[in-house]
Order: sequence, then C-alpha cells, then structure tokens
Amino acid sequence: MTVADVARSANVSKATAARVLGGYGTVSDKIREQVTTAASALGYRPNELARSMTTGRSGTIGVIVGDIENAFFSLAVRGISDSARNAGFNVIIANSGEELQAEKSAIDLLIGRRVDGLIVTPSDCRESDHLSDAIRVGVPLILFDRTIPALQVDAVTGADREAAIAATRHLQDFGHRQIAYITAKEGAVGEFFTNEYQLPTSSVLGRVEGFLATQSANGVLDAHQLVRLGATDQKHTDAVVSHLLNGSAPPTAILASDSLVGLQVLRSLHALGMSVPEDISIISFFNADWTTVTTPPITVVDQPVYEMGRLAAERLIARIDGSGGPAEHTRLQTSLISRGSVGRPK
Amino acid sequence: MTVADVARSANVSKATAARVLGGYGTVSDKIREQVTTAASALGYRPNELARSMTTGRSGTIGVIVGDIENAFFSLAVRGISDSARNAGFNVIIANSGEELQAEKSAIDLLIGRRVDGLIVTPSDCRESDHLSDAIRVGVPLILFDRTIPALQVDAVTGADREAAIAATRHLQDFGHRQIAYITAKEGAVGEFFTNEYQLPTSSVLGRVEGFLATQSANGVLDAHQLVRLGATDQKHTDAVVSHLLNGSAPPTAILASDSLVGLQVLRSLHALGMSVPEDISIISFFNADWTTVTTPPITVVDQPVYEMGRLAAERLIARIDGSGGPAEHTRLQTSLISRGSVGRPK
Repeated sequence: MTVADVARSANVSKATAARVLGGYGTVSDKIREQVTTAASALGYRPNELARSMTTGRSGTIGVIVGDIENAFFSLAVRGISDSARNAGFNVIIANSGEELQAEKSAIDLLIGRRVDGLIVTPSDCRESDHLSDAIRVGVPLILFDRTIPALQVDAVTGADREAAIAATRHLQDFGHRQIAYITAKEGAVGEFFTNEYQLPTSSVLGRVEGFLATQSANGVLDAHQLVRLGATDQKHTDAVVSHLLNGSAPPTAILASDSLVGLQVLRSLHALGMSVPEDISIISFFNADWTTVTTPPITVVDQPVYEMGRLAAERLIARIDGSGGPAEHTRLQTSLISRGSVGRPK
Repeated sequence: MTVADVARSANVSKATAARVLGGYGTVSDKIREQVTTAASALGYRPNELARSMTTGRSGTIGVIVGDIENAFFSLAVRGISDSARNAGFNVIIANSGEELQAEKSAIDLLIGRRVDGLIVTPSDCRESDHLSDAIRVGVPLILFDRTIPALQVDAVTGADREAAIAATRHLQDFGHRQIAYITAKEGAVGEFFTNEYQLPTSSVLGRVEGFLATQSANGVLDAHQLVRLGATDQKHTDAVVSHLLNGSAPPTAILASDSLVGLQVLRSLHALGMSVPEDISIISFFNADWTTVTTPPITVVDQPVYEMGRLAAERLIARIDGSGGPAEHTRLQTSLISRGSVGRPK
C-alpha cells in the first residue's frame, strides 16, 4: 500500500497525498479529510519515517552488534533495550557478524530507516570513514565495547587492560609463568602476536597489552609467543590448542579472550583427555551461563555487560536530546570471579 | 537533515524536494539537479523508505524474536540472515521478550519502517488481531516456532509433539514412570497442567500433549500433575524443583521444555546436592552449548533451528516475490542426542 494508491483512491495528486500523510506542507481540511479517509479505508500505515523527515525524530535507536550468537551481545542488547524503553525509544538490531562490509551495510540500512541514533560495536577499529559519514549526517553515535582512536565520539567499554592484568596476576599468584592467551581473531595455527595490526578490535588489543605487561613485570619476556590467534571455531581451536600443548614450552594455564573461545578451549582440552585444573588452568572472559555448570566451574572475568548496554543507551539518548560537550569514553571496571578452574602448575 | 533543509538549501518547495528525493512525480532536470546537489552537499541520505513508497520494495525483512537472550533464537536469526543475504535482503531484528504488548509495538515499528515481510515468533497463540492487521496491509508474514490456529498464514515449526514423544519414550525405556515436565510459562510454584489455556504457545502445548499421551500409553494416568509451570528464572526454578522433589511422589526424571529451563533445573539439582543421572535423570530441549560441557553431558532434543530459520526466510521471500497458494505449515523433525544424563530410576 503506497502513497500512490492512497492518492488514486482519494482522487488527489501523489504530492498532495504525500503532504497529508507525511504531515508537512499545507492542504485544505477537506483534502486532508479525503486523504486520511482513503488511507484508513485502504489500511495504509502512516509512514513514521516520512513523518520523521519533518519532525526529525523517529523514536528508534539502531544497534549493530558484532555477533548476535555471542551471549555478551545479547545481554548488552537487554541493557540497551531496558534503558531505551524507559526513555520511550524502540530498538532495532542488526548483526555485523564481525565483518566490516556487513557493518557498513547495516549502518546504511539503519540510517535509511531514520533511526535517531546508533550504538555500534565496530568490527575494525582502524576503519572510521563509514562511521564519520553517520556522524556527518547528524546521527548521534556511541561506540560499544571498543573505541576508534581516529574518531572523536562517545564510547562505553570495559576496562580491558586492567581486567587482563587482574586475570594474569591471579594465574601468576598460583605460580604460573607459561600462560597462553587465545583469541578468535583471524590467524594461522601457531601464529602468535607480534604487532597490533593483527588485532583489529581495541578491546582484545587492550587485553593482550595488559597480559603482556603483567607477564613482563613477572620476568616473562617472550610472553607474546603464547598469544595465539585463530580460535575462530571448534576445529581451529582444537588445532591452536594442540599446537600450543605440543610446543617446546607448553602453557600451564590459558586465558580465553571471550566466552566462545573459552568454551571451545575447554572442549579441546576434554578431547585431549586433560583435566582442569589438575593438568591445566583456565580463565575465561565473560561470566557466561556455561561457566557455572561445568565440573569444576570456570574462573571468569565478569564484565558488567548489562550495565555497559544501559549506559550506552542513556548516553545516546542524551546526545539525541541535544546534550553537547566533548566525546566521553566511559570504561567500566570488571571483577574476577574465582571458581575451580585455576590450580597450581603441574 | 530533513527534506525541509534540502528544500531550503535548493531554494525549492518542500513538496518539490520530496518529489525528487522520494523519486516520484515529475520535475524538470534543472530542478532535480538543484535538489540532488543540495542534498549531496548537506549529506542528506536518500530515504530508502520514502523511495519504497513508490517502488513498493525496501529489500528488508523484519524479524521479531521471543527472547534474544535464548540461544534458540540467535541461531534461528543466523539461519534467517544467511538465507536473506543470499537473496539480497537485509534483516532487522526486534525483541518481544515474550510479551504481547512489546510484540504488537515491534510489529508497528517494523511495518512503519517498511519491511517487505515479517517473521514473527508469536508470544501468545490465542491473539491474532495484530497479526491480521499486518496481513491486511499486505505485509507477508511467516510464523516461526509456533502456529496460530485462527490465522491462515505460513508457519515453520519443529515437530514438537513427536519430539516430546521420543524424549518421553527414551525415559520410559530406562524404566522411568514418574517423569516431570518443566516449563517457563507463567504459573505459581506447584501449579500443574490442567488445561491448554495455561500454555499460550503452541510449541510448548504440543510438547506437553505428546508427553501426556506417551505417559498415558504407558499406564501413567495422572502425568499432568507433574507438568509444572513457573520456571521463569533461577529462583523460581529452584522453588519448582524443590516442590516437586518434596512431593509425595517425586519424579525420577525431568524433561526441560527449553535449554534455559534445562540449565536452571540442572543448577537447582546441583544446589540440592543431587547427582545426574545417579539420583535423577534429565533431558533438555535444544542442543545448547552448555549441554556438551557438563559432567555428564546432557541428553537433548536436537531441534534443527538453523534450518528452521533458513526455511522461514526462503518462504517469506517467495511470498514477497508474489508466490501464491494456500498457507503452508512446515514442521521439521527433531532428533534425540543421547548423552550421559539419563540412567535407570534410583
């Protein structure tokens, strides 16, 4: 049902029907009545977006998540949605799958649907042009979980560097020196961290930097060789873990960069017949459901993800409402939940 | 940036600017050039929805899920998205949180954003007016996971009744007669199934009917007294499980209606110091991540959720492309994955 159909039925021009239905320009009461009656009879839905062209407000926030199947993001979406609903905003969500092209297309999609603002988890913190475009057309933007140094824009993230420092110290306190850090960022089996260009997301980079600094402070100077990439799925994680454990200096503990990696690493260890924490210790980022029902339950870095989502939405709505001032980066502290998956090295 | 801004900058009327930017009506080449130059200089994004008012196609599918934090739905969204992308469609998602009011508002929201079609998980299968409205305005609709008897519309679901029959028989084969079925549908602690009005979603109702028929066939005639409602969160699940186990005829096995309920039930049993399957057996619907890393891993009803999502999107796109014919209900068979959580009754 289009404006053209309504116009035909009301016996007016399309431009006139568009004026009435879009709520802009002037028409006589008689014509307005004619058009709205026709629209109602035809079941035409007033196009809120056409209306928003004149009112400048659609009452909707767009959210682009990195991976909708990662519980980290669905919890964040709940925080965002609760906050948005309280302020009278709706939320629509798009998934980038951590792919830059999909993220760009999702941004175009949501801006085309006239969202009042965007919360975006940038899949590549070195790319900012598509986000600059959004800002340039006047759509307020909050970065979530990650920052983009080149962009002067609000961001809500975890305190990733500090979180990794606390987790690494916890392992060191149990006597571990050979600690592996495993991430799902693209990389060949056996590929280890040599430079920041391997880690396109600021959150993971911050964690790795915190990990390396803490290892270095403990006198472990080649720790970067145990920062391993490529745990993209179960098969690749199996390969990454096997390669680590068959190396010349196998790790006695593993730090998993997120809870999907953590779950895959645990499965890899089970498949190799290794016991946690007797044979190897493990800490995972994110307090995922599964970490509480394993035997033993898993020690985790508890990120305040719901709160991060809530704050991101509040900040965005303040910007939509015209709040000025310089860009703010809000970093939320994490805590370590000590369970049974860390023991002394074998 | 609105049509009004572009009109002002191009020195034309709003109606003229709207005609150019919306792609309808006739204007001179000179005026068109004037407006598009102004729009481009101002960073005005062509409103794809305004354009869709005339072309009748926005290239976008709207999906309303019951609970975005349930892995069942995020896997379904991946199936839908993969299928949509292959056909050149984008996907935007809204979450109803299994609340009818939120579902209605999400439908208005997405139709207002001119999606070409909707995939909806109806939160209450007895309510159909809001969905009839969508159909009446010509938006193709596919029901997902659940059907609405009053509505002649395509649906893609699991074969829920048969799935429950297979799971119940599996427990019976191990010698279980006292089997509890636990769902998150609203209900007081101790409330058991007496009539279908307690279960507003067709999927759960189908499972319960299959369970009861199978128990009845095995000579258990009061099985409905062990169909328990109210496992809405951990605290309530603890209460439901305690009430069951402290009853006069405690169950020797539990069938969990979805994987969130299953996880909560397992935690309740752990808190009570009960061992699976030595003290009690358990089967959960949905092959969730956590079911593979517990000790023992959990026997599950494996629902082909990705495939269900894929088929729902394919069906929807066929309808958007004008495919006629009567409404179809596609039911996908499930399989039972036998792991270690079922043993003989104590």
